[in-house]
Amino acid sequence: MIKVGIVGGTGYTGVELLRILATHPQAEVTMITSRSEAGQPVADMYPNLRGYFDLEFTEPDEERLAACDLVFFATPHGVAMRTAPKLIAAGTRVVDLSADFRIRDLDVWAAWYGMPHESVEWAEKAVYGLPEVFRDQIRDAKLVANPGCYPTAVQLGFLPLLEKGLVDPSRLIADAKSGASGAGRQGKIGMLHGEIGESFKAYGASGHRHLPEIRQGLEIAAGGRVGVTFVPHLLPMIRGIEATLYAEVRDPAIFDTLQSLYEERFANEPFVDVMPYGAHPETRSVRGANHCRMALHRQENSPVVIVSSVIDNLVKGAAGQAVQNMNIMFGIDETAGLDAPALLP
Amino acid sequence: MIKVGIVGGTGYTGVELLRILATHPQAEVTMITSRSEAGQPVADMYPNLRGYFDLEFTEPDEERLAACDLVFFATPHGVAMRTAPKLIAAGTRVVDLSADFRIRDLDVWAAWYGMPHESVEWAEKAVYGLPEVFRDQIRDAKLVANPGCYPTAVQLGFLPLLEKGLVDPSRLIADAKSGASGAGRQGKIGMLHGEIGESFKAYGASGHRHLPEIRQGLEIAAGGRVGVTFVPHLLPMIRGIEATLYAEVRDPAIFDTLQSLYEERFANEPFVDVMPYGAHPETRSVRGANHCRMALHRQENSPVVIVSSVIDNLVKGAAGQAVQNMNIMFGIDETAGLDAPALLP
Amino acid sequence: MIKVGIVGGTGYTGVELLRILATHPQAEVTMITSRSEAGQPVADMYPNLRGYFDLEFTEPDEERLAACDLVFFATPHGVAMRTAPKLIAAGTRVVDLSADFRIRDLDVWAAWYGMPHESVEWAEKAVYGLPEVFRDQIRDAKLVANPGCYPTAVQLGFLPLLEKGLVDPSRLIADAKSGASGAGRQGKIGMLHGEIGESFKAYGASGHRHLPEIRQGLEIAAGGRVGVTFVPHLLPMIRGIEATLYAEVRDPAIFDTLQSLYEERFANEPFVDVMPYGAHPETRSVRGANHCRMALHRQENSPVVIVSSVIDNLVKGAAGQAVQNMNIMFGIDETAGLDAPALLP
Amino acid sequence: MIKVGIVGGTGYTGVELLRILATHPQAEVTMITSRSEAGQPVADMYPNLRGYFDLEFTEPDEERLAACDLVFFATPHGVAMRTAPKLIAAGTRVVDLSADFRIRDLDVWAAWYGMPHESVEWAEKAVYGLPEVFRDQIRDAKLVANPGCYPTAVQLGFLPLLEKGLVDPSRLIADAKSGASGAGRQGKIGMLHGEIGESFKAYGASGHRHLPEIRQGLEIAAGGRVGVTFVPHLLPMIRGIEATLYAEVRDPAIFDTLQSLYEERFANEPFVDVMPYGAHPETRSVRGANHCRMALHRQENSPVVIVSSVIDNLVKGAAGQAVQNMNIMFGIDETAGLDAPALLP
Repeated sequence: MIKVGIVGGTGYTGVELLRILATHPQAEVTMITSRSEAGQPVADMYPNLRGYFDLEFTEPDEERLAACDLVFFATPHGVAMRTAPKLIAAGTRVVDLSADFRIRDLDVWAAWYGMPHESVEWAEKAVYGLPEVFRDQIRDAKLVANPGCYPTAVQLGFLPLLEKGLVDPSRLIADAKSGASGAGRQGKIGMLHGEIGESFKAYGASGHRHLPEIRQGLEIAAGGRVGVTFVPHLLPMIRGIEATLYAEVRDPAIFDTLQSLYEERFANEPFVDVMPYGAHPETRSVRGANHCRMALHRQENSPVVIVSSVIDNLVKGAAGQAVQNMNIMFGIDETAGLDAPALLP
Repeated sequence: MIKVGIVGGTGYTGVELLRILATHPQAEVTMITSRSEAGQPVADMYPNLRGYFDLEFTEPDEERLAACDLVFFATPHGVAMRTAPKLIAAGTRVVDLSADFRIRDLDVWAAWYGMPHESVEWAEKAVYGLPEVFRDQIRDAKLVANPGCYPTAVQLGFLPLLEKGLVDPSRLIADAKSGASGAGRQGKIGMLHGEIGESFKAYGASGHRHLPEIRQGLEIAAGGRVGVTFVPHLLPMIRGIEATLYAEVRDPAIFDTLQSLYEERFANEPFVDVMPYGAHPETRSVRGANHCRMALHRQENSPVVIVSSVIDNLVKGAAGQAVQNMNIMFGIDETAGLDAPALLP
Repeated sequence: MIKVGIVGGTGYTGVELLRILATHPQAEVTMITSRSEAGQPVADMYPNLRGYFDLEFTEPDEERLAACDLVFFATPHGVAMRTAPKLIAAGTRVVDLSADFRIRDLDVWAAWYGMPHESVEWAEKAVYGLPEVFRDQIRDAKLVANPGCYPTAVQLGFLPLLEKGLVDPSRLIADAKSGASGAGRQGKIGMLHGEIGESFKAYGASGHRHLPEIRQGLEIAAGGRVGVTFVPHLLPMIRGIEATLYAEVRDPAIFDTLQSLYEERFANEPFVDVMPYGAHPETRSVRGANHCRMALHRQENSPVVIVSSVIDNLVKGAAGQAVQNMNIMFGIDETAGLDAPALLP
Repeated sequence: MIKVGIVGGTGYTGVELLRILATHPQAEVTMITSRSEAGQPVADMYPNLRGYFDLEFTEPDEERLAACDLVFFATPHGVAMRTAPKLIAAGTRVVDLSADFRIRDLDVWAAWYGMPHESVEWAEKAVYGLPEVFRDQIRDAKLVANPGCYPTAVQLGFLPLLEKGLVDPSRLIADAKSGASGAGRQGKIGMLHGEIGESFKAYGASGHRHLPEIRQGLEIAAGGRVGVTFVPHLLPMIRGIEATLYAEVRDPAIFDTLQSLYEERFANEPFVDVMPYGAHPETRSVRGANHCRMALHRQENSPVVIVSSVIDNLVKGAAGQAVQNMNIMFGIDETAGLDAPALLP
């Protein structure tokens, strides 16, 4: 059994890690930390876990964490970059679900996250945990930077087009919509049910932290500069991201082969499902599951290819992908603990 | 592997059976019938099942069904009472999720369901599939009548009080609220999102089909006549039932021992969770899971004991309980396929 | 024009007062106070009011408030009892939407609200602002204590039964459900969309602050002691309260006359709608409107009369009733500003 | 008083017309037709209207309709084109809320609506009822084609850019999201609460009926051909449309003047609100109101201008705009009956 520690377990990402690991056949959560809730049983805060975990939240104790085989950081940005290097030095492997190690250019990171980066070494050595691109590097990684939720949905949807150079990389548009759980579990007025129920809006339309992460990933795929416009929106629901992606093909003739291109690109991916041409993926079709489902569209003779891509922001967009990365790192079945279908309806 | 057939698989109960059985370690769905959808792949209708089932819906073929070890009926009332007896005669065991075999008094059944009953024999021989009461009989049952969703939440909450004779059985009140999936998957205007989103109402307040089933179960527990008022309500959400139960104690002194009475009554029940005194069970704490969670309350010095009981109407209130019954019938681990925590948030 | 001031206008009750008063033909909001938001334009916080109000929130200034004809307090409890008496002394009339003046027994008040009461005089002189009972006293009142949301729905539903002495007053049950706006607009984790969306639960089942207010109102109606059990629940929606009320009739023969009793009791009430016997009032049928709709039910030959009563908690349960009281106090049309139908769907 | 008739009043557009007209100071609904509900009181179907209308639905009787000053068609496409010409011939003016007279090119109309057009004359003479563009023609129109919901939100947002020729007209993208009431009130499985609650998806991504209407309007504004990609999405809520619009400016220098361009363009429009640069309009800020609110965004140095535009699909996107058109046609205050603020929260 892989001994797992979780740092910062009181948020939605934390409880989702516990939910998934509760039935993982080869991993066992041995500690979960929270400064604010130390001493409280996990199941008191999350009654869905009653009967599954006897754990209490504990103070973060680096020594005890270092005794784990793997530690997940489910913390706000700024925490993992300080603590993870010490755990790695002690031989523990780390999957960081925060943004600390996702961006290569540390000036960009500092500008978007409002603080200087404190671990230049590991920002460089960290492997970006998108298995569909970096599976080989993840296997031996000491530190995996788990992708953001929007970046996962957007990158997976654009990948085949950019890798093959089929579209104008300077004119990419990603119109993305997320359920409210993506904002975490903090007492902000703007996230009250009374504020966001029965309503919809864009937010961060002038610039969102996931933009540089998305651009970085797309540039790796494209092998060069890309111009991408990314607008996130807030949905009156809890789980799920849908990203509608727009790109202009260089040559309309490729529309004939796009569907098979996508199918081939993801043929061996256990968690990417290319639906039939013209389908409309629903977020509920991945609720609670680690899948990304996507489908392609074209309107009349337009040069614009449209991709609709859905994930559960807490699963493939966070905790599920983190467990997928753990499975890869430890050489076990990549789908272990992640094999249940989505909850529909 | 238990070979499982499902009759009438296009509704929410059908897809929920498939979702649960997709990861059941000892059961395999070998056929699923639907007259209207014959020929359509199951995963086309329910995209959460893409990659899990290669099955197509087929015409109901009694011969092929009789080759199954167990058949679930997820049909409207009136179907199972005609078909199940033939399958039983052929050696197949049956769990009927419809109302056909739940009511002993066939005059009552006929009055509420608007047709004469067509299988007097099996209405009598059927075992009522509430494992917390009838586990021993379920083991050897050829035909299990899976309880209704409301009756499950209401009976479990009242059981300890009535079995011990602690309350006035003539003054029971059950105020119950259900998510919209309880109404099934039919194109009724009244169940449109535009009709029931952001709204709440009672329905069936003058009489609902689950009333006689509830009364029958409570009378068995009480060993005599009960007077129960049951009012269902429709929640603007998909899954979940909460029942708030009110009863008048015969002797206020028993309030000191009620909590331990409940805890002891359900101590060995894998799916009933008695929460601490004064807790408020949330339906989300059982979403997608087979648990019933409940808690007790008293206001000041009132003689009224209040029980709040929650289930997922599609799981413990339908498909999950059906699988639990199957597990008992086949002598395997009662929690097989039902061991994942609820999806929260 | 009635010059209106609002103290504490940043919450949902405050914005609802503004929404209603925006089109009131005989009232004009001249100031609205908020310590925390002083200087901010009202329409910046509530974009639905853009174009309707040029007002900014201001510091609460008693002198300027005293220049108003009427001041609404939309504050947490404890504020009005300190400030309202001074305004009244200066000749300003007051409608307090908080709980400060609702309870006559100040020991009870102090016990439930956790502080001693600071205005014995006005706690006694205040008129309870339920027009259907106290219209005559409201006309000349200097201080109206606007009823709580649950107490409005529960009292109106029980009134005819208790006033006529038709039911056992010791066995009243009120099972009530409210949308999330009833909890106000504060950054509490428990009220996040991620916490209460798609879920349902009871809360305050062992005792809620509205219980003594309900009991007091019912005892006035009954002319003696009542025993009432009141359990509130939290709905995954924004606006609306439904209360299902249960009472035991003394004489089953009265069921023949109950419907006409209710219709007559409320025949002259502009905002109480007795629906046909057996109807199921929906909260959406009063969304944004000042109506209370109710209907009666009986199950078979049961002695229990069931009343389902719905209001919009922010309108008839708060700001709308407050404006209704203002209209009565100033001798203008009771429905002024309150005549638009509910928003359905 | 303007005598108003409504043809096809059982859908959401019909009830919304009634809700708005209930308090309109200069219009009176004298008849409302429905073949399926003839004889039923309007208030039985829509309880929010109890006390407002004594009307019953009647069979559509052309003679009685012709006695109205104005008739609204709230019918499926194909009805108005057959009936409206007769009413016009009899001197009645018509506002058609269906799609019958929106498209000039009748081949395009026939292709998208699946039937030949039956009134070439009136398809040509009809005035497109977007007051912000065609106010002068609406004044004297005999027949107004009320715009579609998506086309209203999309056109208003793009107008200033296209009218001034500031963006590349061949690269317009409109990513639009609508609440479920936009699909009408028919018993379709796909619109059940259980199907669309807590989920989100694109639909019609390969082509939607509103695409040609949008294109036509944008081409009039641009004075030439445009290339526009339009993808609608279905929101798990009832009312509201948000459209996020993307266009590429010809000259980045114009970003300095865009905000004032928009403010000036709509300065005299009573129902278009240009919010501050960088704001995020919420659909709830227009719920139940006839406003369109919009705001502009730019990301870093991108040449892409982003416009977020919100309306209530049933009001500015249907019934409200229809009443606005009626007001213009009859020379009364354009805001009559439309002056109440949105319902927030």
